[in-house]
Amino acid sequence: MALNLERVGKVWGPYEFNYNERDLIIYALGIGFGKENLEYVYEGAKDFKAFPTYGVILPSNAGAEAFLSTKANFAMVVHGEQTLEMHNPLPRSATISTTAVIEGIYDKGSGALIVMRFDSKDKNGKPLCSNWSSAFVRGAGGFGGAVQPKKEIPAIPQRNPDFVFEAQTVVNQAALYRVSGDRNPLHIDPAVAKAVGFKEPILHGLCTYGVICRRFVREVFQGDCGKLKSYSARFSSPVIPGESLQTKVWQARPHLFLLEVYNAKGEAVIRNGVIESK
Amino acid sequence: MALNLERVGKVWGPYEFNYNERDLIIYALGIGFGKENLEYVYEGAKDFKAFPTYGVILPSNAGAEAFLSTKANFAMVVHGEQTLEMHNPLPRSATISTTAVIEGIYDKGSGALIVMRFDSKDKNGKPLCSNWSSAFVRGAGGFGGAVQPKKEIPAIPQRNPDFVFEAQTVVNQAALYRVSGDRNPLHIDPAVAKAVGFKEPILHGLCTYGVICRRFVREVFQGDCGKLKSYSARFSSPVIPGESLQTKVWQARPHLFLLEVYNAKGEAVIRNGVIESK
Repeated sequence: MALNLERVGKVWGPYEFNYNERDLIIYALGIGFGKENLEYVYEGAKDFKAFPTYGVILPSNAGAEAFLSTKANFAMVVHGEQTLEMHNPLPRSATISTTAVIEGIYDKGSGALIVMRFDSKDKNGKPLCSNWSSAFVRGAGGFGGAVQPKKEIPAIPQRNPDFVFEAQTVVNQAALYRVSGDRNPLHIDPAVAKAVGFKEPILHGLCTYGVICRRFVREVFQGDCGKLKSYSARFSSPVIPGESLQTKVWQARPHLFLLEVYNAKGEAVIRNGVIESK
Repeated sequence: MALNLERVGKVWGPYEFNYNERDLIIYALGIGFGKENLEYVYEGAKDFKAFPTYGVILPSNAGAEAFLSTKANFAMVVHGEQTLEMHNPLPRSATISTTAVIEGIYDKGSGALIVMRFDSKDKNGKPLCSNWSSAFVRGAGGFGGAVQPKKEIPAIPQRNPDFVFEAQTVVNQAALYRVSGDRNPLHIDPAVAKAVGFKEPILHGLCTYGVICRRFVREVFQGDCGKLKSYSARFSSPVIPGESLQTKVWQARPHLFLLEVYNAKGEAVIRNGVIESK
């Protein structure tokens, strides 16, 4: 079935979303924080706070209506890219209001790319963050639609990375991450994973995204998550819970970092990673 | 300050408590279940269910009022014993009503033992489980009060255990377990742990309790948690998250199992363990 292109540009919502300290802790544990980082896992810590990538959770209930209006076959969708832009630190609990808009539906030949934008505010209207989420719909391309505008990503410098660090995921990473909101059975149910062509359940792209940002903040920002201005990543290969990931970082400009993330087989699981600092 | 003995026998509550599938999953992960046990961590599993020791969570908000009426110094309290008796399987989500009663306040010399009983029902009045929880109040003994009636626990048979199994806890076990309800900082805050005489934060007694029952059900009940009729344990030494525990089980009668649990140093962390099967 052809995608419905008429929905591009329409604003959906706002959708309300609530979270509390317990939800922040569960998310932080889900991306691998633990007792050595009490500021994210213990509400009684003096400096308790939300880790900024919790921002990707805020549109949890804001995407379905707009997305389904495109008539895309959900079983054929994989998460392509994610960009998070921080406007203000996330409160330790909040009632959030998020609007959704389909920015574009692009023809990639083998499939279609649906790019959605989400803007989240607190109940006083203070902007907290924006998310761009790209869904690749396998088999839905070739409709003669627009070509995705090229993003201006600086080339990776011709030198060894400026930072290299490891991140160990655990076999139950997806089981824990999913209680933060994304209950897609692909990440826990072996039968569902097999039915869509994977050997076993794969980790949520957004879990990998959080895991890598956790390690980046420690290695590059010396633990100061307040420095995160924006973070983009393309999910180029699936991660299996339990895999160890290696991140290579090039500091292209004083406030611009380029990332690539590899699994133990040397496959890139994140490409086009870009982190901007404040 | 002397304890207020006048509250013995008074019924408090009922107190309402709600839980859902997400809460059951978070609890199951907190006692060490993972993707090899989808029936406890994946709400889409055909046989998804509550693990029976989630019953100890139901009185989470039902104990404070009665307990505080005794004027016990909360900082001096350690969890002594726990008994859970199952009346019916726990639903996958429920509104629970729990009453609390102080069954007795006993003089143990070096301290006082406060024994509370909790009865939990669903909203239709169907009894789900009862809990008995004993709190040992250090320094509050010697008031000439009643001696605790002796429980009839069969002696451990003079033979090697009938089952021996290991349970590995992880360093972030307490950080995860505490989001199921017991936020006592003793289990996460190094400063609080030191202030009350521990080198580092200790695992919740009720987390150890759940971890051991998880392993028991697998090893002795071949995975059938519906066989659990009742489960008693005395918390005789603290467990540090990350420790490996060894459980020894003697089948004293066809439906009666006696347990002892040891840490790697050979200290008993659970004594007087008794599990009755259906």
